[in-house]
Amino acid sequence: MRATVLVRPKQGILDPQGEAIEGSLRKLGFEVAHVRVGRVIDLELAAEGPNHARMQVERMCSELLANPLIESVQIRLDGEPLESPAR
Amino acid sequence: MRATVLVRPKQGILDPQGEAIEGSLRKLGFEVAHVRVGRVIDLELAAEGPNHARMQVERMCSELLANPLIESVQIRLDGEPLESPAR
Repeated sequence: MRATVLVRPKQGILDPQGEAIEGSLRKLGFEVAHVRVGRVIDLELAAEGPNHARMQVERMCSELLANPLIESVQIRLDGEPLESPAR
Repeated sequence: MRATVLVRPKQGILDPQGEAIEGSLRKLGFEVAHVRVGRVIDLELAAEGPNHARMQVERMCSELLANPLIESVQIRLDGEPLESPAR
């Protein structure tokens, strides 16, 4: 089963990469604000159905993929829509 | 208007970060394969409707956010679903 994980800096957490991109976009003439940069991780995993898959991906997030203190996570399995706002 | 841009390494392009994460996940006992890592960029932009917004974001991608030789891009405006597979 394929899964996509979006890892973003939480609100209030500094994001120097986002600030740099925002500055560059403005210099190029774009009217942008609140630029934030995170990671997207695509993977394929062995799982017995979507519930098991989601549990596994959640464990991957807490053990390796994200730092829950400063990052929020969104998980999407296969073709399903992204779950509601980042926790 | 809010936009989300997913920038991923194209198929066939080496992704050392993805390989490192895949190795670490396997060492932790997860059965994963084809792990790929890209960037997610969230931003707010001034635009006169969704068509104008999408055009602007596409220009941002080609001028700064992505390298079209090695990266593919997916754009999502506001709450709309992600457009079909990365180009």
